[in-house]
This record gives sequence, C-alpha cells and structure tokens, in this order.
Amino acid sequence: MTEIIAITDPSDVRLRLYRDVKDRDLTGREGLFMAEGRVVIERLFVSPWCVCISVLTTPDRLKMLDISQAGDVPVYVVDQAIMDQVAGFAIHRGYLALGRYSGPAGLGEVLKPGRVRVLALSTIANTDNMGGLMRNAAAFGVDAVLLDAACCDPLYRKAIRVSVGGVFQVPHIRVPNLVEALTAHGVAPYALSPSGAVVLDDVAPAERSAFLFGAEGPGLAPEVMAACTSVRIDMHGGFDSLNVATTSGIVLYHMCR
Amino acid sequence: MTEIIAITDPSDVRLRLYRDVKDRDLTGREGLFMAEGRVVIERLFVSPWCVCISVLTTPDRLKMLDISQAGDVPVYVVDQAIMDQVAGFAIHRGYLALGRYSGPAGLGEVLKPGRVRVLALSTIANTDNMGGLMRNAAAFGVDAVLLDAACCDPLYRKAIRVSVGGVFQVPHIRVPNLVEALTAHGVAPYALSPSGAVVLDDVAPAERSAFLFGAEGPGLAPEVMAACTSVRIDMHGGFDSLNVATTSGIVLYHMCR
Repeated sequence: MTEIIAITDPSDVRLRLYRDVKDRDLTGREGLFMAEGRVVIERLFVSPWCVCISVLTTPDRLKMLDISQAGDVPVYVVDQAIMDQVAGFAIHRGYLALGRYSGPAGLGEVLKPGRVRVLALSTIANTDNMGGLMRNAAAFGVDAVLLDAACCDPLYRKAIRVSVGGVFQVPHIRVPNLVEALTAHGVAPYALSPSGAVVLDDVAPAERSAFLFGAEGPGLAPEVMAACTSVRIDMHGGFDSLNVATTSGIVLYHMCR
Repeated sequence: MTEIIAITDPSDVRLRLYRDVKDRDLTGREGLFMAEGRVVIERLFVSPWCVCISVLTTPDRLKMLDISQAGDVPVYVVDQAIMDQVAGFAIHRGYLALGRYSGPAGLGEVLKPGRVRVLALSTIANTDNMGGLMRNAAAFGVDAVLLDAACCDPLYRKAIRVSVGGVFQVPHIRVPNLVEALTAHGVAPYALSPSGAVVLDDVAPAERSAFLFGAEGPGLAPEVMAACTSVRIDMHGGFDSLNVATTSGIVLYHMCR
C-alpha cells in the first residue's frame, strides 16, 4: 500500500538521501539512484528491474502522479520551498524518487535461446548519449544492453532523465569484454563505424545479433572492430558525422523489426 | 589572405565581440553568431551560406587549425588566460570564431525544380534538439531546413556546437507558415507523429518531399497534421518515446536515399 506522508521539517531524517542532489550525482547514494519527473517516476513504478524506495513531491504535484502501480512505497509530501532547500536547487519538475537497480543475475537470464537483439556499448562516457542510447533501446525493445568498464553508469540522474525512464525498462549489465560475452552466448556482433565494410541496408542480421557502438571520435577499438561485422551508414558529401544515439536509433529501427 | 594577429592587451577593441560570450548567447552580436571548436570552425570556413568574420585562438591551438580555406579572415592569437578573461569563462576547446549567416534570398533559390528533400520544423525551442536536427540535415544532405516562428535560432552557440557545424552546410529559412510555403513550391508535406496514419516503411515519398517535426510532447498542431500525410514509427510495448533529433535521423536516413 502506498503511504502518503506529509513532512514539514526540512531536517527530517527521512529526507536524508534527497539532500544535495547535484553534489551526489556521481558518487551515488548507498547504491541507490535518483529519478526526476513525473513520466520517469511512473516508469520506475512498473520497472521489471528496479525497485522504487521512496518518492518526494509537493501537494500540487502529487495530484497529477499516478501512484496506482507504485506499490508499497512511501511518498513524502513537502512544500516546494522545502523540496528546493533539501535538494539544493530548484526542482521545477516537482518530483524526485529514489530507486534501486537489481539487474539480471547474468547474461543467460536475459539472452534466452532464440531471437535476441542486444545493444553493446564501449567507452560511452557522456551521460546525454548514454541516456539517448537507453531510450532507443527501450523504444525498439532490445533484450539487453551490455556495457564495458569505460561506460558511465546509465543510472546517473541525467542519463535517467534523458532516457525518459527507458533505463528502467531494458536490463543493462557490465561485462569485462563485450565480444567475448556475446560470443559465449552465441550472439553475432555487428560494429557500427563510419569505415564499416557493409552498408546498413545490406546487413541481414543473425537471429541472435548485437550492435556495438563506441564513443564519437575515437570509436570502437581496432580489436573490437576486427571481431565484428563492421557496418556503416552512408552520409552526404563529406559530412560523415552522426550523433551516437541518433545512429543507434537508425540501426535499432532497422534491426529490431 | 588569412592574417595572423597576435594580441596581448585584453582590452583590445578587436576582441570586443568576443566579450562575455555566455551573456550574449541569446541576444546576438550585431547579427553575428559565435562558433567554437576546431572542426566546427573549419566547417565555417567552407560554408556556402556563412562568412567567417574573425577567429580567436591561442598559439598552441593555431598550429592545429587548418586555415588553408579560411580566406580573407583575421585570426587573433592570444594567451589562454586572455581568451578566458575576454570570453568570461574557460574556453577549453581553445577556438572561437565570429560569423555571419546569409541564407538564401527565398525558397526558390534552394528548392530548384526536380527532386528535393526538406526538413520542416515547428516549435523546436530546445537548442540541443535544434543542433541535432541540423546535424542530421547535413549528414543526409537535405536541400533546405524550414523553420516556423516558434523555433529557436539554429545559430545559437550551443545549437551550432551540437550540429558540429551542420548548420553551416544546410541553408535554413524562416517562413510564416510551413505548409503554405511547401505547397507553394510543389513540395509534399509528411508529418511525423506517434499517431501517424502510415508506418514509415510504407511511405513512398514524392519526388519533392518535406518531413515535418514538432517539439516532443505537444507535437505538431492539428491544422498542420491535417494538411500532411501523417507518418509514424512503430515502437516497442508502450514505450512510445523517441527524441525528435533521433526520429529525424531515422526518417531522413530512409527518405534521403
């Protein structure tokens, strides 16, 4: 049962983990993440991979939040001034929530036998791009997102926001070596690169396929490229520059049908 | 002939338009725009629609800048400390440039007889999205970008940066009414919307086609939708949410081949 709890004391201990939101963005909150915005938090409520720990909002905003699927979660209700004071800046959207991610126990849990589509990311350190990639993964229904050690956390506050909660819908898992993990599960790796050998339209993806993306600029490491079918998107006269999240949208649109 | 001019006095009048970069972002600089970063400025040098007025950089960064196509442009060279002081914040990329946009005289100049592809934007007020849209327009070689009155300026500093200079390659033009302007030039309008009547794959675009996008959330106005063939991109189980720049990438990839 969702419990609505009015709080009037900004030093209330139950608000502890909502303090100084910005300062704690990159250091974490005892393994929890912070979500913001109504749509994002409603997606957190129904996430198969995350648990919502609590919600912080204002009396007016509470009326607009659909808590019918929130489950057994305390919703703390404070005045906007207290919310801003606790968080350390103005929370215009009027909603914060704490959550905990419990991803799959292993790749086998999400890469079941039969058709799979995987998004595999290397060195994506930009939270905007990470959020955009996770949003596209959710929109096109990929089965899992694999991350190497050099990727940022998809559960950073900004990545969650940019993903519009897509990060709650698709499981992500960090692996030591993308190609080895995929190969071990019988998933064929396709690497996107401006210098790819095959144009996207000519790719007939295997039943079990993964699409690998690296950071804009450096791209994927040569040893990763060498282990994959390399794929390119042809562009117009000399302007060989697409954002990595946009590229993933084009590729996943094609490959996840 | 490109002229290299060392400046040691931060109050030098030639640095006037480089002052207080951030404060002037939205108010303009006597009709000029400001570009930043090496790749972006090199694209400005070869823009068919823009003139570079001057460049500001440091001695070290100058060595890496390809000025072979810069033309008759003064390049002011200052120490990093002066650059930061003049601009009002740390210019990590080490390059700024002023430019002037002189778009087409009218739509007829860019929508010549025969095949055309147009990106038409309504109420795109977010500079990140505007930059992403312009980047995709350049990558897929659209002939022109049309903007309604509620779109932000594609020449805002951040939009230029996000476009990676794509805004210098594709002409943009503001029109009072997107559909009327397109119809007057015999261009068929296709409107993207989650509720579109036709799925993207089933669209056989006319020889002269425009693709219309509105802001995420509100989308295109009903009267605009009614005048267009409405097109949708099918997404996965309930997650009907794509970024507008990503959507434009998917659509332009399909339609500009």
